[in-house]
Amino acid sequence: MHNIKLTVAYDGTDFRGWQIQPGQPTIQGLLTEVVQQLTQERLNVQGAGRTDAGVHAWGQVVNFKTNSELAPEELRRGCNALLPPSIRIREAEEVGPDFQARRMARAKTYVYSIYRGAVVPPFLCRYVLHVPQKLDFTAMAQAAQYFEGERDFTSFSASTGSEEEDRDQTMIRSIFRSELIDHACSGSPTSTLICDHRLRPDEWLYVIRGSSFLRYMVRKIVGTLLKVGRGQLPASEIPDLLEKRDRRCSGPTAPPHGLCLQSVEYPDPPISLGDKTRVR
Amino acid sequence: MHNIKLTVAYDGTDFRGWQIQPGQPTIQGLLTEVVQQLTQERLNVQGAGRTDAGVHAWGQVVNFKTNSELAPEELRRGCNALLPPSIRIREAEEVGPDFQARRMARAKTYVYSIYRGAVVPPFLCRYVLHVPQKLDFTAMAQAAQYFEGERDFTSFSASTGSEEEDRDQTMIRSIFRSELIDHACSGSPTSTLICDHRLRPDEWLYVIRGSSFLRYMVRKIVGTLLKVGRGQLPASEIPDLLEKRDRRCSGPTAPPHGLCLQSVEYPDPPISLGDKTRVR
Repeated sequence: MHNIKLTVAYDGTDFRGWQIQPGQPTIQGLLTEVVQQLTQERLNVQGAGRTDAGVHAWGQVVNFKTNSELAPEELRRGCNALLPPSIRIREAEEVGPDFQARRMARAKTYVYSIYRGAVVPPFLCRYVLHVPQKLDFTAMAQAAQYFEGERDFTSFSASTGSEEEDRDQTMIRSIFRSELIDHACSGSPTSTLICDHRLRPDEWLYVIRGSSFLRYMVRKIVGTLLKVGRGQLPASEIPDLLEKRDRRCSGPTAPPHGLCLQSVEYPDPPISLGDKTRVR
Repeated sequence: MHNIKLTVAYDGTDFRGWQIQPGQPTIQGLLTEVVQQLTQERLNVQGAGRTDAGVHAWGQVVNFKTNSELAPEELRRGCNALLPPSIRIREAEEVGPDFQARRMARAKTYVYSIYRGAVVPPFLCRYVLHVPQKLDFTAMAQAAQYFEGERDFTSFSASTGSEEEDRDQTMIRSIFRSELIDHACSGSPTSTLICDHRLRPDEWLYVIRGSSFLRYMVRKIVGTLLKVGRGQLPASEIPDLLEKRDRRCSGPTAPPHGLCLQSVEYPDPPISLGDKTRVR
């Protein structure tokens, strides 16, 4: 039995999210179909993050177990040949039998793109939220920092379900980084975190890295940051909002298309069995 | 009567090209419809370049004459409110009565994108030609230079029609620049020519700037450069190919989706009447 880890990028525009749903186009559904076709087995493909409808990914991580003797590189090429160009396998490798993309993730990084220019280039319209109006960058950047640390995120949770339903039901999450950056920051260590095609002029990126996330949490944080940027909420009130543990007091949920699952991290030492296929 | 000049960007993927065709989705058709709706007049929208189906534009230039008293900025906002996000008016200005986007263009710049990485990011797949195989950059760059100057492009023309059908029927065109560049060139004066979201790692751009172009000419040149890159044609044979004036001897026509009309230039002094709306 081989345990295969894939790193997957996708444009979520035309999908009903990651999670498989009968009769709906989903990333997990399509990927499962294609892997089953290649391996000629019935199997399950598990992903690290359940991205919602319209959310994109650059570094989603999945794994599946198979008896197929196809090499990881053959699986990668085979999947890419059968999948639409909106879903791409960037890497494939064989990992130890204990690896589980979902349960073993130590950190995930999400990036939310806010386009500040007057006109969104047609080439970007599927990947950015357009906010040409006046926004206070400094206040938003300050507000963003309050989300770092171990916090109860009840105020920023959806009314039902969470990304980690099958884990414990606590609303406490550890956020290692919560930062608003703009193009002027490029050249900083930040740019290595962001895939190369990101960080453009007129674009602000909100980067959040944490142990795990509640459903809609990132989009609710972004909606709240935008309220701060518009002067409707002082940055200094974020700690109070968190304290209240009341989901009615956060800002609106920002639309999905500005959000991208950037990367997923796993513990060292590497869990690879070698034979890694790395593609830039 | 006001003469309005628009600078238009579009993602050509879902259109049957620039030129209006009854019952087909075209950029000119949609733009004409929207401008007619705003001005409440029947009028014609003329474009500088007739891009083919699937070809994109960053700096297409169009003009139309109207009795409407809407300010250029109102027209720009109105058009962008009514058009799909895949077509955007970047600039609108009122120009002198003699300005004609098509006939007065002194130079056009086209950019063709060749993606060299093993996997095309899903966010780029609509805008690049994927060529992961070995290519000789130096030979292609050398071949590209042979197209500069005043040349007879019969060998690189389509079997019927030309972009400038209503102009003279000569196959002679003046090419001011023909250059293959890669990411390593960024920071050079080149990058100012290319819109900001272009020139990414793993991407080669072929840039051609000329007085005007025959139909399929840029795509046939790119198809020929790729033959050179694969070692199927020595770069030094390009002058002979041009000399032969035989369209059977050029390379195949490269696919449309890698091509973008980058910019159109007009004579100095500026033809503007002021009231320009410039948007980055």
